[in-house]
Amino acid sequence: MFINKISHYLPSEVIGNEYFTKLNNLSSDWIIARTGIHERRRTSEGENTSTMAVDAVEILLKDAPYSKNEIDLIVGATYTPYDTIVTLAHAVQHALQIPDIPVVSVSSACSSLLNAIEVVQGYFAMNKATKALVVVSDNNSAYNNETDTVSGHLWGDGASAMLISKKRQSEQDIFIRDLKTGGAATHEKAMEAVVLRPNTRGVVMPYGRDVFIHACTYMPKVSQEVLQRCGLGIEDISYIIPHQANHRISLNIIGTMGIPEEKLISNIQELGNTGCAGCAIALSENRHRFKKGEKLIVTVFGGGYSYGAMLLEV
Amino acid sequence: MFINKISHYLPSEVIGNEYFTKLNNLSSDWIIARTGIHERRRTSEGENTSTMAVDAVEILLKDAPYSKNEIDLIVGATYTPYDTIVTLAHAVQHALQIPDIPVVSVSSACSSLLNAIEVVQGYFAMNKATKALVVVSDNNSAYNNETDTVSGHLWGDGASAMLISKKRQSEQDIFIRDLKTGGAATHEKAMEAVVLRPNTRGVVMPYGRDVFIHACTYMPKVSQEVLQRCGLGIEDISYIIPHQANHRISLNIIGTMGIPEEKLISNIQELGNTGCAGCAIALSENRHRFKKGEKLIVTVFGGGYSYGAMLLEV
Repeated sequence: MFINKISHYLPSEVIGNEYFTKLNNLSSDWIIARTGIHERRRTSEGENTSTMAVDAVEILLKDAPYSKNEIDLIVGATYTPYDTIVTLAHAVQHALQIPDIPVVSVSSACSSLLNAIEVVQGYFAMNKATKALVVVSDNNSAYNNETDTVSGHLWGDGASAMLISKKRQSEQDIFIRDLKTGGAATHEKAMEAVVLRPNTRGVVMPYGRDVFIHACTYMPKVSQEVLQRCGLGIEDISYIIPHQANHRISLNIIGTMGIPEEKLISNIQELGNTGCAGCAIALSENRHRFKKGEKLIVTVFGGGYSYGAMLLEV
Repeated sequence: MFINKISHYLPSEVIGNEYFTKLNNLSSDWIIARTGIHERRRTSEGENTSTMAVDAVEILLKDAPYSKNEIDLIVGATYTPYDTIVTLAHAVQHALQIPDIPVVSVSSACSSLLNAIEVVQGYFAMNKATKALVVVSDNNSAYNNETDTVSGHLWGDGASAMLISKKRQSEQDIFIRDLKTGGAATHEKAMEAVVLRPNTRGVVMPYGRDVFIHACTYMPKVSQEVLQRCGLGIEDISYIIPHQANHRISLNIIGTMGIPEEKLISNIQELGNTGCAGCAIALSENRHRFKKGEKLIVTVFGGGYSYGAMLLEV
């Protein structure tokens, strides 16, 4: 399958580290040293997970390689839903007015970009769809407790959309050569390490250290596995886009895998942790850099826990 | 694909209509005449969407046709999540301690049982799984405003679990002969008719009449389509299990389709609207009634909107 086009949407409000200095007495240097984050975006009044998804789709469909009416599947992903009944995928179907196609939203926390793409791959394998629209959107600020000195400053808001087809549509397509996802909820602290319980409290991360360790273990492991399945080595990879949770995690991953820092793509510095949208936004932001024949790894890790990796060939 | 075994879990607390007579001055006769509901179950302290899912799985795996370690995919569905990061599917993976298999939760509101099974069908088609565990669970009481005189009395809590395999495991298996899902969010009121926005309000249904009309249109339509694809007529069907939203919707559906009332399976009388778990609970409760060779339709409709139908052959 092939990524035909990718877009992203970011809310306009920028929240710098000085906001958390005022609020929580955390210095900008302290935040940068521990997370790599300089600033993040925040939704304004009237914006939410679903509106960001629709906005990303609107950008995507400008000069799209085919008509919106050829889309025959919509898959959404988020862990910060505006509405759990009228999901972001349904909001997008409503905006596009494409009737009678399968529409579903998924969640596997920060790793659900790859779960969503794997669900698309399944519909392609069943011959139930040929051209899918994937939307990933996380509105962390809707559930974040900003006064939480442990993780309040980590989160950002953003969305991305992509068109994925079963068959190649043009020379500009990015080939999804392999994709693997997995749940890792078997670990002792997986049920408590990072949670979002809408009824009792927002997103909190009481066991950040445990998340850090498993993120640094699973992302290299699943990336290596996908590389091996494709008969490729580290030297064949032009770029890696890991889940944007913490810049120290990203540096740890490339250290473990032996990937030089110039091959690491990051947006956490400007966007914070934008959840399952983070890697997709990075892919969209850097699309112009990728040259024909270059290979990329996108690898993710999510609370719960869950993980995945995808090998892309431009 | 085949349903190898199905189970259900219901919380023990029973809430009769007299509860809503006291609370909202709605007589039991009035509730029964408009909805068919006599009573519903409610989760107790410490119970939630994820614990109910785990409880249903525990019941399922007693005398299961194969070892839990053969399960190679877990798909959860809910629109009333306890935790949107540690989803019900992840809670089940944690309870079962089965590492390194794909784990994902989906939502398409009340119709997501069929979306979950279609996701499984996709993994089977990709040869990425052969034996899946599907869990559907809705804890409406966690988000319901009981003092809402429009829909407060409609909702119940419950869960179901099923083992589904790509190949037949035994003569007791139920064959899933066909399955179709669709989004219907294109309708004018789809974004507002029934919503669950965790941050601003619970589950509310400001346009119940619109939901009623579309439920009564889509469920017969998609059921007829699936029957036609299988070369079957109404007379070939032994039972129909529609989404348990309102008994008047169910009666309307069988009226439209020309199905006699003795073929209608319902549990809304005792359970209320248990969301995406309703049809699966009904299938589990009535499993003993189904005779070899009998054919059933399961058809669903959800807020958002979305719909689906599945043809089962015992």
